[in-house]
Amino acid sequence: MIKRLCVIGVGLIGGSLARSLRRVQYCGEIVGCSRHREHLERAREMGVIDRFETDPAAAVKGCDVVVLAVPMGAMREVLKRIKPKLAADAIVTDVGSAKRDVLDAVAEVFGEVPPWFVPGHPVAGTERSGVDASFPSLYDDRPVVLTPVAVTAPAAVRVVSDMWENAGARVSVMDLQRHDEVLAATSHLPHVLAYTLVDTLARMDQSEAIFDFAAGGFRDFTRIAASDPAMWRDICVANSDAIVQVLEVFQGHLEEIRQAIAEGDEQRLETVFTRAKGARDRRFPPGRQS
Amino acid sequence: MIKRLCVIGVGLIGGSLARSLRRVQYCGEIVGCSRHREHLERAREMGVIDRFETDPAAAVKGCDVVVLAVPMGAMREVLKRIKPKLAADAIVTDVGSAKRDVLDAVAEVFGEVPPWFVPGHPVAGTERSGVDASFPSLYDDRPVVLTPVAVTAPAAVRVVSDMWENAGARVSVMDLQRHDEVLAATSHLPHVLAYTLVDTLARMDQSEAIFDFAAGGFRDFTRIAASDPAMWRDICVANSDAIVQVLEVFQGHLEEIRQAIAEGDEQRLETVFTRAKGARDRRFPPGRQS
Repeated sequence: MIKRLCVIGVGLIGGSLARSLRRVQYCGEIVGCSRHREHLERAREMGVIDRFETDPAAAVKGCDVVVLAVPMGAMREVLKRIKPKLAADAIVTDVGSAKRDVLDAVAEVFGEVPPWFVPGHPVAGTERSGVDASFPSLYDDRPVVLTPVAVTAPAAVRVVSDMWENAGARVSVMDLQRHDEVLAATSHLPHVLAYTLVDTLARMDQSEAIFDFAAGGFRDFTRIAASDPAMWRDICVANSDAIVQVLEVFQGHLEEIRQAIAEGDEQRLETVFTRAKGARDRRFPPGRQS
Repeated sequence: MIKRLCVIGVGLIGGSLARSLRRVQYCGEIVGCSRHREHLERAREMGVIDRFETDPAAAVKGCDVVVLAVPMGAMREVLKRIKPKLAADAIVTDVGSAKRDVLDAVAEVFGEVPPWFVPGHPVAGTERSGVDASFPSLYDDRPVVLTPVAVTAPAAVRVVSDMWENAGARVSVMDLQRHDEVLAATSHLPHVLAYTLVDTLARMDQSEAIFDFAAGGFRDFTRIAASDPAMWRDICVANSDAIVQVLEVFQGHLEEIRQAIAEGDEQRLETVFTRAKGARDRRFPPGRQS
């Protein structure tokens, strides 16, 4: 149980967390915070939060758990604002997609990484954003990764872990660097590719006519390119090392495929495509809703 | 109306065409043909076809319309087999994803492109294949592109166009070269990227653990990588010029993005991501089922 939860950033991620915890009455009170008063009013109207503050310093007052659900680029500023007003026993966690960058910001603002800060990342979401896109089952059976470091208090990890389990998620603990590399491969790189593909088509002559012949496969492939551009700009900057690393490996493989296509190397094409289909089918077995 | 339709290749595409035409009783008889007797038996059992032949030469006998729905790589061989047995007034069309290659095969087998051959391409499909994956509404409101050339008989184009309209599709006529370029961009390149991405992850250390953290965005992005590898090998070879051309443009844009990420160029990232989201939202408006 959390007596008073503060959710800073009441969008898809923060709003869905609040709603999922309400389902099981896990919080005495939920305080929302955002720069946008109208978003907060909407969130209160929808019953996502009990009350709100537009000032993070005011919002965290008396809260036992604080969740930072703001875009990566806003993390430093919010940490600075809440620092003087955090309760002595408050536990702070975040939902950022790149953990090294968040931890650097925390260390910068607090002088060192405090034991009560638990880096976290719910691996869930949709291409939509904002509190209107939030829903209580977003985290049901979805992975949430916590990446505590040496100084992180085990008791703080337990509090954050309990919160996410009550939100419906499967919690696991992972090395921070490993998290950033894995997510660069499974999430950040696909977003970069989808954005770059759609942009390539958009920059072609008569691009509107080209898009007319984009069918269902294209729609699914590019769904993530409908995601919030500012959020993904922030993630690319925050996790740039790991993204560039896996992107360069991908570029090497893509160049091999280009050569195989140019040379009509059927054997190589079939090998790669078959290996890829096999890996994808193992992860998302055909027949089930895929 | 078609008196006797021959569908060579009774899989997702050919099977769905037969089923969509049955809905409106557009054919007196539908004859199926495939190398695999068990697929044909299954198709007859399901009521997709009336009867079958495993020999294309026998299958086309007395048919007024013949649809070649075999993989691109099998096209030449099938054309050779049916050549001596086609009825004098038969009209032949195909469903291949790359039209120049099909037309080259036709010209090679028949000495020249005959007026009764109508190159066609239904821009529809799923990642599944085989007659069990076929369904009657696959073509409803989906684009079918016909790419007749100078010698193609307008009357033959009308017959094929009527057939597809009765299957539920929206038929348009496009320049053959333009078709191959547009489909390279909207369909073939996305498949190449999806296969290459999944393969890149599959070749990493501890790849199974990496895939555990692949969420909904990854699932949608890579759905097309579950497509039949042999079919896509054939398409890559058949449309290699157009695919390599658009792939090289994409590679240039991807390298620009890599540099922007490496340099933390937020402005450039936001510009590209915003332009991409705008183009994608125009094609598939958010809020509707996307």
